[in-house]
This record gives sequence, C-alpha cells and structure tokens, in this order.
Amino acid sequence: MNGGHWETISSEQQFADRNLEVVIDRVQTPGRPDPRSWTIVHRKPAVVIAAMTRDGKIILIRQERIPIEQAIWEMASGQIDNHDTDPENIKNVALRELREETGYELAARGELVSLGYFFSSPGFTDERGYFFLARPVQPCADGPDREEGESILDCRAFTSEEIRRMIAENEIRDANTLGICARLASRGLLSIAPHHE
Amino acid sequence: MNGGHWETISSEQQFADRNLEVVIDRVQTPGRPDPRSWTIVHRKPAVVIAAMTRDGKIILIRQERIPIEQAIWEMASGQIDNHDTDPENIKNVALRELREETGYELAARGELVSLGYFFSSPGFTDERGYFFLARPVQPCADGPDREEGESILDCRAFTSEEIRRMIAENEIRDANTLGICARLASRGLLSIAPHHE
Repeated sequence: MNGGHWETISSEQQFADRNLEVVIDRVQTPGRPDPRSWTIVHRKPAVVIAAMTRDGKIILIRQERIPIEQAIWEMASGQIDNHDTDPENIKNVALRELREETGYELAARGELVSLGYFFSSPGFTDERGYFFLARPVQPCADGPDREEGESILDCRAFTSEEIRRMIAENEIRDANTLGICARLASRGLLSIAPHHE
Repeated sequence: MNGGHWETISSEQQFADRNLEVVIDRVQTPGRPDPRSWTIVHRKPAVVIAAMTRDGKIILIRQERIPIEQAIWEMASGQIDNHDTDPENIKNVALRELREETGYELAARGELVSLGYFFSSPGFTDERGYFFLARPVQPCADGPDREEGESILDCRAFTSEEIRRMIAENEIRDANTLGICARLASRGLLSIAPHHE
C-alpha cells in the first residue's frame, strides 16, 4: 500500500500537557472504503543508545519507571524536543543522553552508528525511537551529568552473554532495549544467541 | 530496589474512552525522597504471537496502523479484555488472535510456548505485551476469521533469513515484532544473526 492515500479528515484534541497529547481523529486509510475514528496519543520521538565498550560490553542503566511502578535495566534513552527531524540534531541528542544517563562518552575515533528507528506501540501512539550504537565508549572524566528529573539508580557494563541471559529470563523487558538488541543482532553487531543448543 | 516502596498518593483522570485512559498520578518511588507527578496512559495488556510453520518459517501480517499512517509487516497481536491475568485465559486470547489474524492454527501436538512479556513504553504507559511462540502452525481449513475492525492487508510466511534482513533494513519496525524476535533469539528459538560477517 505504499503510495496509498492516507488522509486525516478531522482531529479533535481530548487532552494535552507537556508529556503527551490525546486526539480522536477520523482517518481515511488506503485499505478500507470508509474513514475510521481512532484515539491517538502523540508523543515526542526518542533516541535509544546502545553504548559498547572497547571490550564489547554494553552499558545499561537501572531506572525507576513510574507508569509500571518498577525499576528495570535498560538502554540509555531520551526524548527529542520540537519534533526535530534533522539527523545531525538527533545524533547530538543521542550523544547528550549517553553522557547524561550513563556517564560514558564516545572515545577518540569512536563512531555513532545509526540503526534506523521503531514504533513503540503503533496501535495507539505515533511515538518512535531512533536507534544508535555508540562504540567504543569510555567513562567521562566527570561522571554522569544527570538532570534533576532522572530516576537512575545504577549503571553497569554487561557482557553480551549477560545481555542474552537477561533477555531470555525476562529481566530485560522494555521495548527500547529488546528492539535495539534485535536490530543489532540482525546486523551482526551483537550476539544474543546461546552458544550451544 | 525490589521490595521497595511504591505508593500512588493521588490519581486524577484526565481522559478515558474504550481504548485508553489518561491519568495524572502523584507517586512515591523507592529511589527518591519526594513524590513525583506523572502523566500515565493506561492500556489493556496484549498478546504477541510468533507463529512458526513446520519448516521454520514465521507468519507475518501486513497491517494498517492509523497512528503512524503506515501499513507495516508485524507479528499477530491483540488486546486482552478486562485485564485478565489468568495464564490459561491469556493463552486462549493468543490462540484466538493467531487464528483470526493469520488464518493459521496450532497443528496436532503443536505447542504454545510462553516467552514472558515486555513493556512497550514504560516512560508513559503501563501497556504490556505477552509473548508466545506457536509451533508448528498450519493453515485453518476455513481461512482467517477477521473481525470487522481488522485492517490486515496481507499475510505471508517468511524464512528466518528474510526476517533477519527485514529487521536489519528497518522494514520490521514495531516493538512487538522486534521484541519477540529478541526474546526468541536469546532462547535459541529463532536465528536473526547474519550467517557470515
């Protein structure tokens, strides 16, 4: 259906604050004869950063997530303001979040590899996350630079085998981290398969 | 922080319909001294089903997703009504969605393997998805049984190498599908790594 006809016929705002906006839209889709009414949550896009050390370890943070009332191990991430779509600006957000949340930064001659993006829950929200691999990373001289709002309890480097085990055992259980691990694995940048079957 | 103290001090509903509810809660977390105000979207939990044929292919559907105004290839999925947490009931939802969305069903002596769950975007929503592997599957005698509301344009079986390529090239780009592929790969149930590096 690429090139098909999508058209928003009407849009009524139901709620908005600085975190999200809820609208009910009437939308004509390419695949159906009649428009459909849909409740949509608009959210800022985000960056998700896999930070890899020189010896192939991945940096995870342990963060309190209020909507689920749990603290979970996950990749560094952060929101992009103003729906900025400029690739260089998005990369700079990724580098800033890397530093702020993990206290690591790209080493000299390190690279930030763009790994595309994903939709967190396209049945109800347009939220998307841009994936990046930063490698190699090294600790910043001055440690993490966490904003007041951050709820990061811990930060550690994990081997790929530890990451694999955490995914298998449901300890890694957020879309950002599972999603970037799938993308990395598919490109041969991280092994999450068991060594022996 | 397991065993820590989470407490919702107050909760104010901002919006609700049959699809989602928005609240602003004041929440005491284990890791911070003072309560925080947070905008939370409550959503029904979901099931996500990887359907594998006897020859190891995976069934994907191509579905119109109104919030992103795109049709994407993804795993079958569906919502669980009434926040049912009974494992048998959740499995039955998975089997029903498998049949309705793909037109496949478990073969005789097939198994439905529970693969844990994930959170789609725990920074703003409590939505979770339960992962299942159904194998082997076979076409139903009477084809898919799609509800009026479904927007499924196509359904096909893909080899694991095709799945790998689609993940690597951003063609697979939703959290459900990326997440379950990571979980499957970590348990040695699906290979998404390139054969040669």
